[in-house]
Amino acid sequence: MGKIVQCVPNFSEGRRIEVIEEIAGAIKGVPGVKLLDYSYDKSHNRSVMTFIGDPQSVLESAFQGAKTAASLIDMSKHQGEHPRMGATDVIPFIPVARVTMEDCIKLAQALGRRLADELSIPVYLYEEAARKPERKNLSSVRRGQYEGLLTAIREPERKPDFGPAEVNPRAGVTAVGARPPLIAYNINLDTGDVSIAQKIARAIRGSGGGFPTIKALGISIEETGKAQVTINVCDYRQVPLHRVFELVKREAARYGVAVIESEIIGLTPLDALADAAEFYLQLAGFDRNQILEKRLLE
Amino acid sequence: MGKIVQCVPNFSEGRRIEVIEEIAGAIKGVPGVKLLDYSYDKSHNRSVMTFIGDPQSVLESAFQGAKTAASLIDMSKHQGEHPRMGATDVIPFIPVARVTMEDCIKLAQALGRRLADELSIPVYLYEEAARKPERKNLSSVRRGQYEGLLTAIREPERKPDFGPAEVNPRAGVTAVGARPPLIAYNINLDTGDVSIAQKIARAIRGSGGGFPTIKALGISIEETGKAQVTINVCDYRQVPLHRVFELVKREAARYGVAVIESEIIGLTPLDALADAAEFYLQLAGFDRNQILEKRLLE
Repeated sequence: MGKIVQCVPNFSEGRRIEVIEEIAGAIKGVPGVKLLDYSYDKSHNRSVMTFIGDPQSVLESAFQGAKTAASLIDMSKHQGEHPRMGATDVIPFIPVARVTMEDCIKLAQALGRRLADELSIPVYLYEEAARKPERKNLSSVRRGQYEGLLTAIREPERKPDFGPAEVNPRAGVTAVGARPPLIAYNINLDTGDVSIAQKIARAIRGSGGGFPTIKALGISIEETGKAQVTINVCDYRQVPLHRVFELVKREAARYGVAVIESEIIGLTPLDALADAAEFYLQLAGFDRNQILEKRLLE
Repeated sequence: MGKIVQCVPNFSEGRRIEVIEEIAGAIKGVPGVKLLDYSYDKSHNRSVMTFIGDPQSVLESAFQGAKTAASLIDMSKHQGEHPRMGATDVIPFIPVARVTMEDCIKLAQALGRRLADELSIPVYLYEEAARKPERKNLSSVRRGQYEGLLTAIREPERKPDFGPAEVNPRAGVTAVGARPPLIAYNINLDTGDVSIAQKIARAIRGSGGGFPTIKALGISIEETGKAQVTINVCDYRQVPLHRVFELVKREAARYGVAVIESEIIGLTPLDALADAAEFYLQLAGFDRNQILEKRLLE
């Protein structure tokens, strides 16, 4: 197998199952693409689909998903807790194997062009694909949401990267981007004191002066009554799982608190685990092609 | 991708490159098989080939390799430092993905039957495929080597599992078996005192009262002047890399010696690395299907 790109579009539909399934069907219908997972949330009124394949198939599949969403979702009637601005709200491309970030940025540009030209949807490029620094951050791209953008889109600094400076009344606006794989990673502490988890979260996250690629919160887990540091590892090549784990363990020890366990939620690239094994086993000169299964993907 | 079996036959030829390449060519010539690696050693006069594929293709490929070796290698003239008894000396089948040890034992039986019937080569089943306890161990199967077996093969307890109780004068005798993946794993110590490495090796290996699936020696590395514990991890599901590493580190500390690094030589299954990551990150509830690349092998 050759180049592999992952794509994780978010759609503004989390209630009408038949709509979600029609979008999933459009994505799966493209040969060369494998839909790994989809989930939806009623209160957010939003669904997330995860698929992989070769770059051209993934591009086509993302377009087909967005086209189907545009025909079935009417943003002028949409309500939900999660911020949103389009029927297809965001489409990130993620390099997985034998693909660079640059390749994924080009996919984002090509898809943005098609959404604008063929479906009249205004498109903002975000994260690694952003052409303006302030568009790196999705929340500033989405500021005002669908309703606010109806007028704000006409401001010069909000001009879309592709398509008209006019919200598509039904399909809204879509953000298309490129980013590294995100790993959802939780660390469970042996304490019921959520303030300790909050202090640790603050110490490691970018917004607290910690690692720029780490987002973290301290929360309480109802089932166990224990505190948890819930983390987004946004670029495991910058800050790997083992560095996060060791740092949280060390910070917890300062309060006399032990780490019970950690959890990876959803998918992780193989390399993130291999990085941890290399670190802890002090592996020297290890080539990832020594992994038997990697040879089968060639 | 579906079922995957690995096969690592050893051939009694390490000097005539053209013979080695002809055997490699016979193995590669079977569709569905990927030859990952081959190496040879002049003083051992022996070569090792590593290939993978679906079970039936791997079986056919192993047969074609053995057939070619039987036509090009004359054991009555063979000399070399490594113990040996056949042109194709040993053929182990190794489960890699979606294949059980039982499947590999059946492959060994089917190949043994063919080598006996079509090439008149006596075959012993060894390791997990052994039908007698004393044949689990390859060195007792090979006791006496080619020259000794010329007469010893007629003893009732040495009767082959397949084929005549008579050594094939040119092709000799072949051992066919099934075993877990073997990981060649070295740990380098920050000392020039080889006796420390030897004491640690004795403490961890089965023959010293340690783990039955661990073989280990203490040696000195000429380039660095440092001591090394060189290890065969014969069944990483029984005794994983991290347990070996942590134990060696602890035993070394008793002599005030630090571990510099470890090395995996050659191939390793992905699961052996994932096991280490799970252990050190204290990962709870991790399913290997959360590894993105695993989903591509389905």
